[in-house]
This record gives sequence, structure tokens and C-alpha cells, in this order.
Amino acid sequence: MNFGPNALDRLVTLLSKLPGIGKKSAGRMAYHILDGDPGYARALAGELAGLHQAIRRCGLCGAFTETDPCPICSDPGRDHGIICVVERAQDLRVIEESREFHGVFHVLGGLIAPLEGIGPNDLSIGKLIARLRGAGPDQGVKELILALNPTVEGDTTALYLQKLLKDFPVEITRLASGLPVGGDLEYTDRLTLSRSLRGRVRM
Amino acid sequence: MNFGPNALDRLVTLLSKLPGIGKKSAGRMAYHILDGDPGYARALAGELAGLHQAIRRCGLCGAFTETDPCPICSDPGRDHGIICVVERAQDLRVIEESREFHGVFHVLGGLIAPLEGIGPNDLSIGKLIARLRGAGPDQGVKELILALNPTVEGDTTALYLQKLLKDFPVEITRLASGLPVGGDLEYTDRLTLSRSLRGRVRM
Repeated sequence: MNFGPNALDRLVTLLSKLPGIGKKSAGRMAYHILDGDPGYARALAGELAGLHQAIRRCGLCGAFTETDPCPICSDPGRDHGIICVVERAQDLRVIEESREFHGVFHVLGGLIAPLEGIGPNDLSIGKLIARLRGAGPDQGVKELILALNPTVEGDTTALYLQKLLKDFPVEITRLASGLPVGGDLEYTDRLTLSRSLRGRVRM
Repeated sequence: MNFGPNALDRLVTLLSKLPGIGKKSAGRMAYHILDGDPGYARALAGELAGLHQAIRRCGLCGAFTETDPCPICSDPGRDHGIICVVERAQDLRVIEESREFHGVFHVLGGLIAPLEGIGPNDLSIGKLIARLRGAGPDQGVKELILALNPTVEGDTTALYLQKLLKDFPVEITRLASGLPVGGDLEYTDRLTLSRSLRGRVRM
């Protein structure tokens, strides 16, 4: 597809590399920006240009942060005895929004996926072990919550970690898997249903 | 929703102003950019920063262009006797892609929509009349194709233009309206069906 002016074409090509954005949506976005206030385009440009300078990864947990260690790792009000292990930094936000968790995090940076060539060594597991050993400010970790996606890769990684860490005096738990709240039995897939049956809880 | 680091928050807020992008997609996009190559963020920033300098509107037809007049208006190989009238500059691209049209364009910049307070004076109609009068390089315009959306606003604007321009020696046509190619009668709405019946063509 040719979007006419070269500058517009280049913008569309770049925008279409964003997740979930095809050539058509990218075109719509580009025209919207072009049609709109130049101040908006400049503001967006400024944020993008400065993004990687402004945000780094927390040396402790691996979350995106403007300060190192991140606000969560350096918060004495959080329970440093419970570490919630997530796949990606963005998963941290979802858990924070639930307001159910008051411990600290650890970002693995991926999941074990042999078909994609991602093994345990590609994940931030060494750092996690160091934290369990008490190398950092987290002393006496009692529980490790594996908040990994209920997928083949998530299950594989959870099992791997469980085996690897079995000699540490730490309880390893996983997020409950089952029917989503507001869900409908009729439209629930077989696997989710069988998991929610196996994991049924006494009322 | 709080996306953690302020720089990320600001980027998400800006991205969520794009058409079709909610807070969630904006968050995904921002994390994708942050997770990715800083060179990509810089390239996108550069294109955005320079966009409004690089692209202006063609003084003749109103299309987005890097040169004025635009490549289409200044192309002697195009038929300057047929002007295709479109609502927005982005509509031009769709028509160009069909490779069916070899005339020139005129961008109205909107449609008559009294409820939104958009009247004929808000559209580029004066310039269109000047073109019909032969003020510009378009001499002897024979046909005006109104390529406006088959919506209430599009129909209103088309009827308005038809009435306004009835004394010009120019044929005024509209795009055919009817079943989309590959469409299904069963799923066609009543209005489209009645239009395609009224506009039926002899085989």
C-alpha cells in the first residue's frame, strides 16, 4: 500500500510494527496525527525520544522503573517475604491493580519455550535464587507466588522452578486456574473446566 | 490506571488518544516500545517530530503532500477534466488503490452535519467552484464524481452540491451503492438492499 507522501509512508511503516496494529490501523493513526494538532505529534515524539533514557530496569526485580531500585522494591511497607514471579514487566501492573498483593515482584523476562529456543538460562532465574539466598534486601522469603500464564509455557516454567527450588525453605504457590468471574459454563473450554473441577474448593 | 513509571504513563496517555486505541492497547504498545529496540522509538519520534513540517496540504485539491501542488494535480498524464470529490484526504488513497480512476481530486474537508455544527461554509466548496470556473490549471471540467460515504451526511452533502452546481456545464455523478463484492444477501441490511434494488443494472 502506498500512503502518498513519503513522510507519511515512513510513519505508517513504523506504526504498523506496533502490536495489534496492521497497515490499515497504522494508516488511520497516521492520518489522525497529521490531521490533528502538531503539538500532539511533538509531545508524542518527545516522550518516545526520551523513553529509554527515562526508564530502566530495576536491578533487583527487573521491573521498568525511573529509579533503581524501583518504588516497590524500596518500599519498607511491602512484605519482602513474599515474591510474586511474573513473566513480563507489564504483568506486574495487572497484579498491582488487583490491590490483592502486598509483597514484592520478580520479572523472569520470559517463559521456557523450547520450540522458540528459550531455555532456563534466558530467564532471570539466577537473580531469583540470589534473592532467595538473601543476597539482597529481601531477607527470609517465605513464599514464591508463580503468577505465570496458564499456558503450556507457563506450566512448563512453573514446574521447572518448582523442581529447581525444592530445597529452599520457601513455599511455592501458583495462581488459581478456573472459570473467570462472570463467565459462562456453556462457553468454557474443556481444559479450563477440568482445571476448575480438579481445583474445586469447599464452600 | 497507573502504568508505573511516569514517563510510561505519559506515553500511554498520549497513545490512547489515537483512533481505535484504548488505555489497554496503548499500554501494550508502550511496553512493546519500551521492551524493544531504542532505535525504533527514536525513529518513530523523528518521524512524528518532522511530520507537520514535511507534509502540507495541496493548495489546489487539499490532499496531503510534500510538494505543492501535489503529484496528482501536477501530473499532465491525469485527466484534469474529471474531478473526484472526497470527504477527507485519506479517502483519496483508497480510490487511488482501486486503480480505476485517472482524473484528479478535490478534498472537501468534511461533510455537512448540522447536528455537529458543520455547514457548507466549513467545507472547501469555494475552491471547488473556482476550479469549475477554470481559475486553476483544470480547464474544461466535464465530470464531478461525488465519492462521499453512503451515509446521511454524505447524502446531504451530495444533494447540496448537486443543487449548488446545477448551472455549471458539468455532469455530477455518485459512486454506486449496493451489495459489497463477496457479500451475502442474508446479512445485508434493509437500506443497502433497497438501494441495490433501486440501482439495479441491466445484464
